[in-house]
Amino acid sequence: MMTNKKPDERLDDLQVKGYEIIQKPGRFCFGMDAVLLSSYAKVKRGERALDLGTGTGILPILLEAKNPGLHYTGLEVQEESADMARRSVAHNGLENKIDIVTGDIKEASHIFGNDSYEVIVSNPPYMIGEHGLKNDNEALYIARHEALCTLDDLLRESAKVLKMKGRFYMVHRPFRLPEIFTKMCNYGIEPKRMRLVHPYADKEPNMVLIEGLKGGKPRLAVDPPLIVYTKDGEYTEEVLKLYGMK
Amino acid sequence: MMTNKKPDERLDDLQVKGYEIIQKPGRFCFGMDAVLLSSYAKVKRGERALDLGTGTGILPILLEAKNPGLHYTGLEVQEESADMARRSVAHNGLENKIDIVTGDIKEASHIFGNDSYEVIVSNPPYMIGEHGLKNDNEALYIARHEALCTLDDLLRESAKVLKMKGRFYMVHRPFRLPEIFTKMCNYGIEPKRMRLVHPYADKEPNMVLIEGLKGGKPRLAVDPPLIVYTKDGEYTEEVLKLYGMK
Repeated sequence: MMTNKKPDERLDDLQVKGYEIIQKPGRFCFGMDAVLLSSYAKVKRGERALDLGTGTGILPILLEAKNPGLHYTGLEVQEESADMARRSVAHNGLENKIDIVTGDIKEASHIFGNDSYEVIVSNPPYMIGEHGLKNDNEALYIARHEALCTLDDLLRESAKVLKMKGRFYMVHRPFRLPEIFTKMCNYGIEPKRMRLVHPYADKEPNMVLIEGLKGGKPRLAVDPPLIVYTKDGEYTEEVLKLYGMK
Repeated sequence: MMTNKKPDERLDDLQVKGYEIIQKPGRFCFGMDAVLLSSYAKVKRGERALDLGTGTGILPILLEAKNPGLHYTGLEVQEESADMARRSVAHNGLENKIDIVTGDIKEASHIFGNDSYEVIVSNPPYMIGEHGLKNDNEALYIARHEALCTLDDLLRESAKVLKMKGRFYMVHRPFRLPEIFTKMCNYGIEPKRMRLVHPYADKEPNMVLIEGLKGGKPRLAVDPPLIVYTKDGEYTEEVLKLYGMK
């Protein structure tokens, strides 16, 4: 297949509907968190979904592949990532289903308006302050640390941009759960569902998938744990299915 | 062994240090939540611990059996439960280590004073409003529903009674986690550790064990899941150990 990828970029098979994505090794590559979130989130027929901090567009592309939703938008502040995302959208012939917008999450409600989306998804930077190592690569640093956008910015803007009873889906680190729940409640996005992702069945979780509902009533459903590897170090059946390998 | 139990009461072996507890079938019987919390909570040498809503005293008695702490106090609003707790304390010869106080959790800071305990534990009523079935048995209803004491009352009073850097341990239902974390943060008891308890490895959790730290910095550690039953319906090795049966 002809593509518009550049010489230092790579074209990766997404194992669903024949879609491929342009990535740049060492700079912008999606992780398991995006794959898991794309299966946790649901976009129903007629609904429009917005991905806040879309990077190279992995979430809108996977969501489009897996859901009957009407339209998908990705917002990305780094122009180089946004450009790769747009070329991947074009490569898969999805220009009518997916828009990539260059812009700042902190400005999302100005860019898109209040009460404008049924669904928001986000795989935001996880790290604050000294959490994790600082990275010389500025693009990676921005993608991983709250350098340009904090959790508070993300939730404040999501609460504005979501329609009433709109759904919010996020993947994050479990160590920030108290802050995540507190801020979601404060901004009126009630946490309704959560799933912890454990590398092994007997190990601490290293990711959490969360669903919130704007204007929802309090009552959290906690899903059974999602286990990534069997004790022999192979992917579990569930993860193989999520990756389209079963 | 001679005891001071009444004819309609039962004397149950606690499987640790030969301790026994007086219970009244259909009215006051401890559950697995108390046993799990008594192992999750730690009371170090020289520390004093307070159990808010002690019922028949199961937590102070199990904590005393498992920890090197200096002293334990149980606060209970229902005099019939408090009386059973006192008789169990006497039956086990623990009058010098455990006090049972009759009183209301909402008055805890008046009864015990501010900044007076290193450790607080609680297995509070889980249900609010229409959650769960209403119960004709008033004593059971008070123990299970927030009839006399809400989560907010419990956390507000705990934050006052705990010393700075004191630890708070609670068992609760996962469906209330967002409210639990929000209120803990608001009252200055930072959630530091959490463990979900699943009946089976692939089922939703039905209990959560939480440790908070008064004046702590934000960072939650999430433990591996605690699984109660093997897929064959037997207790898991870990639960057998917690019950003193291994």
